[in-house]
Amino acid sequence: MISTLTEMQDAAELEYVLQQTIPASKTLELTVVSLASGRIRLEAPVAPSNVNIHGTAFAGSIYSISSLAAWGLIFYSLQEAMIIADLVISEATIRYRHPIVDRIIAEASITEDKHDRFIADLEKNGKARLVVEVKISDEAGHQATNTLTLFASNKTQ
Amino acid sequence: MISTLTEMQDAAELEYVLQQTIPASKTLELTVVSLASGRIRLEAPVAPSNVNIHGTAFAGSIYSISSLAAWGLIFYSLQEAMIIADLVISEATIRYRHPIVDRIIAEASITEDKHDRFIADLEKNGKARLVVEVKISDEAGHQATNTLTLFASNKTQ
Repeated sequence: MISTLTEMQDAAELEYVLQQTIPASKTLELTVVSLASGRIRLEAPVAPSNVNIHGTAFAGSIYSISSLAAWGLIFYSLQEAMIIADLVISEATIRYRHPIVDRIIAEASITEDKHDRFIADLEKNGKARLVVEVKISDEAGHQATNTLTLFASNKTQ
Repeated sequence: MISTLTEMQDAAELEYVLQQTIPASKTLELTVVSLASGRIRLEAPVAPSNVNIHGTAFAGSIYSISSLAAWGLIFYSLQEAMIIADLVISEATIRYRHPIVDRIIAEASITEDKHDRFIADLEKNGKARLVVEVKISDEAGHQATNTLTLFASNKTQ
């Protein structure tokens, strides 16, 4: 998928926010490859930072990168809706199917319906929950899935 | 709980193995505080490496540290049983209850029965699965739980 100039700027901006506020995103060597309404793609190399004892991707790095994909996607949704809210992960289930060999690619998307309901809930109740499924692949294909529940609440300021 | 000299050596040895083989354990600033048959305790500071945008512990760091507690505990079990096997995480569900403010403390234990069944399965079938629950706390108390499924298989050498 080709990114527009605005999408490239938004991806670079989110990458900057992650690097400035979550130091782990730097040690994970994370790149925000693309970002647009309802979809995101993050990538990181396996070696040298994210390797495990078997020479494949460390389970914790796979989790961290996929959690930042889900969080980054919804953080961007809130920005687009011009809502200032705290956004946290309340729960996640990750399933590893096959080892990830070369590159950790985390992709997530949400439908417009799901996005609209989330924003409406948050505006009405001051809080809202949303489930995001992140597909994690390497060059060979789909290797793991992380299903995360995110919780947003209006800042009490 | 007071550690014996052997337990302190075993803890130091596991910490060395983690640092040498999983670079993330260094950036997580992980310490193996105690290790003995059936129980482990890992710790890491929140700031500066494991902080998030809210100034509390990053969800990915909490996951990584708790996954290394589960993995380290069973890696040690395999060493004690003198079994050479590959050990991986196949699935995990993490629930975050409250933010972790100062220190990430990950503790896991397994009963002797569970340990014995796991080792017997592995010896009989060349593979075995085990569920480990990791309790994650900070100085104020229990804040999150990670329930991991580990899979061991004999090395084909």
